[in-house]
Amino acid sequence: MNNGNERKPVAGRKNGSVRNTDSDNARKFQNGKTRTNRKAYYPKKTGVNGRKSPTRRNEAIKSSIKVAFLGGLNEIGKNITLFECQGDMFILDCGMAFPDGEMLGVDLVLPDFTYVKENVDKIKGIIITHGHEDHIGSLPYLLKDVNIPVYGTPLSMGLVGNKLKEHNLLSSAQLNVVHAGDVLKMGCMNVELIHVNHSIPDSVGVAIHSPAGTIVHTGDFKIDFTPATGDVIDLTRFAELGKEGVLALMADSTNAERAGFTKTEAKVRESFENLFIRAKNKRIIIATFASNVNRIQQIVDCAKANGRKVAFSGRSMLNYVQVATELGYMEVSDGAVIDIDSLNEYLPEQIVLVTTGSQGEPMSALYRMAYSEHRKVAVGKGDFIIISANPIPGNEKMVGNVIDELLKLGCEVVYESMYEVHVSGHACQEELKIIHNLVKPEFFIPVHGEQKHLKKHADLAESLGMDRENIFIGDVGNVIELKKGEMKPLANVTSGKIFVDGLGVGDVGSIVLRDRKHLGQDGLIIIVSALDIVDGYIVSGPDVVSRGFVYVRESEEIIYEIRRISMEILQDFASRNVHEWNMIKNKIKEEVSKHIFNKTRRTPMILPIIMEV
Amino acid sequence: MNNGNERKPVAGRKNGSVRNTDSDNARKFQNGKTRTNRKAYYPKKTGVNGRKSPTRRNEAIKSSIKVAFLGGLNEIGKNITLFECQGDMFILDCGMAFPDGEMLGVDLVLPDFTYVKENVDKIKGIIITHGHEDHIGSLPYLLKDVNIPVYGTPLSMGLVGNKLKEHNLLSSAQLNVVHAGDVLKMGCMNVELIHVNHSIPDSVGVAIHSPAGTIVHTGDFKIDFTPATGDVIDLTRFAELGKEGVLALMADSTNAERAGFTKTEAKVRESFENLFIRAKNKRIIIATFASNVNRIQQIVDCAKANGRKVAFSGRSMLNYVQVATELGYMEVSDGAVIDIDSLNEYLPEQIVLVTTGSQGEPMSALYRMAYSEHRKVAVGKGDFIIISANPIPGNEKMVGNVIDELLKLGCEVVYESMYEVHVSGHACQEELKIIHNLVKPEFFIPVHGEQKHLKKHADLAESLGMDRENIFIGDVGNVIELKKGEMKPLANVTSGKIFVDGLGVGDVGSIVLRDRKHLGQDGLIIIVSALDIVDGYIVSGPDVVSRGFVYVRESEEIIYEIRRISMEILQDFASRNVHEWNMIKNKIKEEVSKHIFNKTRRTPMILPIIMEV
Repeated sequence: MNNGNERKPVAGRKNGSVRNTDSDNARKFQNGKTRTNRKAYYPKKTGVNGRKSPTRRNEAIKSSIKVAFLGGLNEIGKNITLFECQGDMFILDCGMAFPDGEMLGVDLVLPDFTYVKENVDKIKGIIITHGHEDHIGSLPYLLKDVNIPVYGTPLSMGLVGNKLKEHNLLSSAQLNVVHAGDVLKMGCMNVELIHVNHSIPDSVGVAIHSPAGTIVHTGDFKIDFTPATGDVIDLTRFAELGKEGVLALMADSTNAERAGFTKTEAKVRESFENLFIRAKNKRIIIATFASNVNRIQQIVDCAKANGRKVAFSGRSMLNYVQVATELGYMEVSDGAVIDIDSLNEYLPEQIVLVTTGSQGEPMSALYRMAYSEHRKVAVGKGDFIIISANPIPGNEKMVGNVIDELLKLGCEVVYESMYEVHVSGHACQEELKIIHNLVKPEFFIPVHGEQKHLKKHADLAESLGMDRENIFIGDVGNVIELKKGEMKPLANVTSGKIFVDGLGVGDVGSIVLRDRKHLGQDGLIIIVSALDIVDGYIVSGPDVVSRGFVYVRESEEIIYEIRRISMEILQDFASRNVHEWNMIKNKIKEEVSKHIFNKTRRTPMILPIIMEV
Repeated sequence: MNNGNERKPVAGRKNGSVRNTDSDNARKFQNGKTRTNRKAYYPKKTGVNGRKSPTRRNEAIKSSIKVAFLGGLNEIGKNITLFECQGDMFILDCGMAFPDGEMLGVDLVLPDFTYVKENVDKIKGIIITHGHEDHIGSLPYLLKDVNIPVYGTPLSMGLVGNKLKEHNLLSSAQLNVVHAGDVLKMGCMNVELIHVNHSIPDSVGVAIHSPAGTIVHTGDFKIDFTPATGDVIDLTRFAELGKEGVLALMADSTNAERAGFTKTEAKVRESFENLFIRAKNKRIIIATFASNVNRIQQIVDCAKANGRKVAFSGRSMLNYVQVATELGYMEVSDGAVIDIDSLNEYLPEQIVLVTTGSQGEPMSALYRMAYSEHRKVAVGKGDFIIISANPIPGNEKMVGNVIDELLKLGCEVVYESMYEVHVSGHACQEELKIIHNLVKPEFFIPVHGEQKHLKKHADLAESLGMDRENIFIGDVGNVIELKKGEMKPLANVTSGKIFVDGLGVGDVGSIVLRDRKHLGQDGLIIIVSALDIVDGYIVSGPDVVSRGFVYVRESEEIIYEIRRISMEILQDFASRNVHEWNMIKNKIKEEVSKHIFNKTRRTPMILPIIMEV
């Protein structure tokens, strides 16, 4: 059995803890423009960790570094943070968030970019820590307005490139491929990339070396001593930085509530090995996150070892597999992968189908299989289905429903944590303690979490001996200024949630959402009347149209009553020679609402419309 | 410390494992009518467990018992099951379900009572296992149409009585208070009540002794050897029944996925003791299920031991506490409880506030505290809040949001399972094994669960040696016929979900819900025109009104375009002398939809309205 240690590095992979300083690490990516002066962001190493030189120390006393949060605090999603020192700025990550249940009809949520646009002249670049949507998802929406150079590791830039292509922005974008160990010059700040483990390869944390001191930001991370592929997180570098002196630590809080240590990805391989045997002659279907390239690699390896071919299902799955394979992050031997259209040419025991839908998302491939709506895959008694993911909070019910439907079709479904078919990509408490202990920061800012996660992470830091006053639990829009011996909040900057609905960005706001909620909960009643423009008497109507209120054919009485009430009001106003349409409409709204509430205890939206003829 | 064993029985409590056979156990409850012939449902014990008499054995061969499921399978909610033998029927439980996310605007979900009404002449009674909403919640909706006598333990009947009072049905209802150990005669079937542990006192399972054999139904249960109040589940009786011979077992599957043993309620008391000390001089606020009378009793006791007064918040909390206290299920010493309006007369360290809202329900007391909307309680740094409940699947996000808001206000919040501030009321795998082993049924029907729970429970039964063919995983509407050596499904009966929205029962169906979903996701556009009744030319309009689509003031162009397209269509039809309003409306709908989708990738509901003038 492969315990994860024996894996040979995949050919072509360049990341890792080896710190590249040669000139090979700034490469033109796809159609993206290369930075004109490649050297510009590879400063000499001397002086970077500059606390030791007296000049730098003096500078540090004068300078401060400002951190502005446009997302990622009090939410898990749309991570985007601005760092500013001596008039230079850069952006760390540029993610989006998924809508919550209240944001009806919203496809995705962007940060408010006002503050970025106001400061575009100062901004030297956008540095991406890894290729997850909550770190890269809003890049296209920013880059279409302001063309800032983007820096990231090969896989991150590959995924960003694909995304920009969809938005027709690839040719104009300045994408720069860099590697863990590289140091990017962002004006007076030198940003060093540090290899970390996470649920997507090629993830980095950063050390921001500034005249005001060094800030370490972990990015999303876990400590995996036996990762499926690639190297162990560069703990040594975190230790060195700690020794050199760190002004502030910003660290991933996602799992701050969880005691212990996040399990290694190697455990998942073990579980797959066991489950592949248990599946016997059934077809194996595995749902997982499309971005979890290591997981997919493990499935491919396990399939090969068990004499099965792999097919992929779901648009994003195909997309990630393609990018990861092209860039050497996945290794698929010849003939190991088949097209989903060829499934029927094989016996069930010769197949592993890897699919999207591990979150029970409506219209995902697994969802369509569960509800017998998939055009190419019909599942049933012959299928052994593994859900290699945990539900993201809020998705529990959807995932449960999909499992129930698969079971009803006769599938065998493995989904419990007891089989360890999934491990988190985020550090638990013991891992967080290691990072805190190594980095030994003067100040601490928990990031990447809801309030409860940030708070727990703050508690953890305090339990390790940090003064509560040196910990800042922030919110989106907050700005904090840091220098040696001092951390203080500054005035907030513009921030918020910009909703994307279809092609519209920002045209759905709180009023539209409030109306959607009202319409969705209670439906609506339209009362339309044509009135004589001169005397205000009814020429036609009032007609009553309802949607989402009651099944009209069975509720004729109430519709009749609505007509009667409206007609009386219209006639009353006309007879009194009052032709204030708004006043009349409000009166109709009020009286009809009252009547309906009394009769039904419901509050549909009432829309009186008056036409002048 | 009280380990739960030392608790003395509360005065006035009558339930327990002592089997009452005296005549005292049929009492008139509140205004409910007493059964005219009390003896009728207390048959002699002889022959009840009749397998031993040769006559009964012959009968058993000829007879069969039919079980019809109108709810509770493939769902957790609206438990209602009909048993029929030799033309006699009775109903076990009559619950409701809460709406899922797709049932927009629906308040609660009832079973379809068609099959009950069709058979009302055969039905001898409704037996209630315990007072939870998913077992009693739809009683008022059934009893308002058909007046069937209801039987249940004192607390169940107290809660049912309160519910019927709200529906003005109490005076006509036939409520009969019975006790664990009693045997109720339902025609040829004798239904014996067996004391079980659960998260509400006075819960029973049943043994249905019929000419076809005995069916044991656990009701909702757990095995608690150190319950907070009352006796341990009557395992002895389950064992006796097993020895006498059981045709079929129907058992609670809620926790069938969970290994091990559900923790005892006594653990919670321990946690409370510790947390009360940790709270120091802060006000303690505990959110829990209003129906968990034992939990509330423990809080009251713990408050007393720590010199704190108890106040209650939330309508259902007050309701449950009142009924439970009146009936002797809660014991509150004089002066232990204060009114919520008197909170300000005490110091924070003198108070424990027990509140609803443990599921993060909008408008619940805790929710309003978290969002600073509670009229009487403002929370903040001085509050120590314990959420003594786990989120029901689907509520995780809501609960998380409430916790986040409380934390933002500075409250200390205890919610993790690590403190054991909540234990489940349902049996885990090891408890289920005990029941299976004691009852030793010929057939097994897992109940009270979604598909995954039923399936797991079936797996468990199989792992204990039961033949898979002797296990029936059913669905709502299924009917199964059982007799010794044979279990076979019969034709389905009418079943379904009846939605309650406000005062309306059943007037919201799939079309209304589909419209609500459409309106909620995409909003609507109304295009209203007044046309000349003779020549069809436009007299007024088309006017465009939209709600939940875009913020109109910023989207004038698209509204203008909708007008233009509609006007062209109207003029075109008029000029061609075509006055088919439906055809015109469909054309407008089609063209406007197409235009909007191209411009925005959205699909609002389009409602063209034509008025003839």
